Amino acid sequence: MVCSTKRPGHCDRSRLRHAAEWIVAASEFELIRRFFADATPNRADVVLGIGDDCALLQPAPEQTIAVSIDTLVAGRHFLPDVDPAALGHKALAVNLSDLAAMGATPAWLTLAITLPAADLDWLAAFMRGFAALAEQHRVQLVGGDTTGGPLSVTIQAHGLLPVGRGLRRSGASPGDRLFVSGTLGDAALALRHRRAGLEAGDLQARLDRPTPRVALGLLLRDIASAAIDVSDGLHADLGHLCAASGVAARVVLAQLPLSAAVREACKADNWQLPLAGGDDYELLFSVAPERIADLKKACQAINEPIREIGELRRGAGITLIYPDGSEGRETPQGYDHFKS
Amino acid sequence: MVCSTKRPGHCDRSRLRHAAEWIVAASEFELIRRFFADATPNRADVVLGIGDDCALLQPAPEQTIAVSIDTLVAGRHFLPDVDPAALGHKALAVNLSDLAAMGATPAWLTLAITLPAADLDWLAAFMRGFAALAEQHRVQLVGGDTTGGPLSVTIQAHGLLPVGRGLRRSGASPGDRLFVSGTLGDAALALRHRRAGLEAGDLQARLDRPTPRVALGLLLRDIASAAIDVSDGLHADLGHLCAASGVAARVVLAQLPLSAAVREACKADNWQLPLAGGDDYELLFSVAPERIADLKKACQAINEPIREIGELRRGAGITLIYPDGSEGRETPQGYDHFKS
Repeated sequence: MVCSTKRPGHCDRSRLRHAAEWIVAASEFELIRRFFADATPNRADVVLGIGDDCALLQPAPEQTIAVSIDTLVAGRHFLPDVDPAALGHKALAVNLSDLAAMGATPAWLTLAITLPAADLDWLAAFMRGFAALAEQHRVQLVGGDTTGGPLSVTIQAHGLLPVGRGLRRSGASPGDRLFVSGTLGDAALALRHRRAGLEAGDLQARLDRPTPRVALGLLLRDIASAAIDVSDGLHADLGHLCAASGVAARVVLAQLPLSAAVREACKADNWQLPLAGGDDYELLFSVAPERIADLKKACQAINEPIREIGELRRGAGITLIYPDGSEGRETPQGYDHFKS
Repeated sequence: MVCSTKRPGHCDRSRLRHAAEWIVAASEFELIRRFFADATPNRADVVLGIGDDCALLQPAPEQTIAVSIDTLVAGRHFLPDVDPAALGHKALAVNLSDLAAMGATPAWLTLAITLPAADLDWLAAFMRGFAALAEQHRVQLVGGDTTGGPLSVTIQAHGLLPVGRGLRRSGASPGDRLFVSGTLGDAALALRHRRAGLEAGDLQARLDRPTPRVALGLLLRDIASAAIDVSDGLHADLGHLCAASGVAARVVLAQLPLSAAVREACKADNWQLPLAGGDDYELLFSVAPERIADLKKACQAINEPIREIGELRRGAGITLIYPDGSEGRETPQGYDHFKS
């Protein structure tokens, strides 16, 4: 602050600002410099990054842009005392997972973060988690907004696709087989353990640091007929795929890819964790029977485990095939994350 | 909800969800359909809009994309009892103003909205304000996220520019003249009136429904050397332009474009409203002397009032020239919007 002796009334140092106000006003530039501007890889297709009214982005000719925006709110999507580095990872992973489900190559990010206080240690840790995952995928943070208020994080991810390509939810046909990546229900079980005051062990990383299946999505662009990422739980997201494609699904529960812990839990809770736990960020996709050999070969080549879990038919709705051979069409109850 | 008679335990209707949870889970699709999917004009360059994991956007060859993201938080950027239609307008206007400051043509929008309750009337009114302004600028809502939590709105605006173009903050040179559009301080005076329990009259619209200067920005792309939009107040935003361009500024206070009400208020508060009130969303820009005739002619042609308010020099910092001829270099105190 530069003070003039002419009009000292303007220079009232006693008006100390609230810490959060300080973030959004006087020191925003300093924050940007320290945490954001050089946090992520520099890409040649970013004409102008952080620091002006807009970022300027230059897709190559014949590229289509895929965009997805997601908000994570404290107390709803994560516990307020979350490890900030894990949150930085997860907030980005959730968005990269949407790009993966579209078969897009991640390129650019924007980040709008609302913070209750000017906690620079917290922000530095958040950006460490964020930047490490951004580095893995060679994606650049190009713009953002830092605001004071209840803690939440909104990220928009921008990916690139060849013109005319892109894995949609709507491309599936009756007869296509259903596949899913990774394992289901681990994050929900970790959360259940945590709420019960138990250690979640290896499962904790599945809740805190999900892996966006970006390489798998790129591969599926040439093979799958439809795809979606599993964020709300297999049943809900399969419902979206079926509705968009105008098909029915049959899911063989015994085929679901499950960790030993989730498999054990399923005995007591009737498949709630893998069907409705959510927060999986695995890819659910459909493949025409004649492409299954190509699919398996390609997934082996990149060491990406996938599992066939059912098939699509004419009609609507989801039929669950239980291990005893019985069938059900019930909708599993989702977990109300972080709500009492 | 489809119930199976086989496993009725899944169909526990007594587990009524909290209203906000209802928004984010079961009815998100219904909300999307009702309020978002067809709210704004359909553009030919949107390959895939709302409803999949990502939107797919197709810029024309030789186009650069300008992006800007901004969050408005209840209690900080607007009063929690704000007219939702005005908020819908303003949240979008703030972002379009960033595109205008870059000289970009608005094209696509994403909207991440966090709501404390499933108030459909509120949301419908918000979208009316949002959609009316989107329609004016032929800009399409292509994606979003609806979440339960403390009220806030994050919008990303995407604009288009010819390759190699774009008005930056950093292009100004010593000798360039400074201009500003519209009038300054009206929104801040309206807020001051409102806090004092007074009617703000005509000023209220300047606070609630700012006009993004999109047409002016397009025109300036060929004429101005640098530009920024005035959101934090003239003094702060001019400081950003000067810092980015490596120049000093002299501002002649008697030349500031002011409404009669703000001019009157300036007598008592030493130019605080136009210098540091903020929320103006006018364009501040620099023009080389030899381009001023072109500027004035072009602005007259589109009936966009502008005012020359000073000039840029070698050095750093901002010098204010008071009507009595005295000079000052003090930093005006900004208003802490909505904070006690």
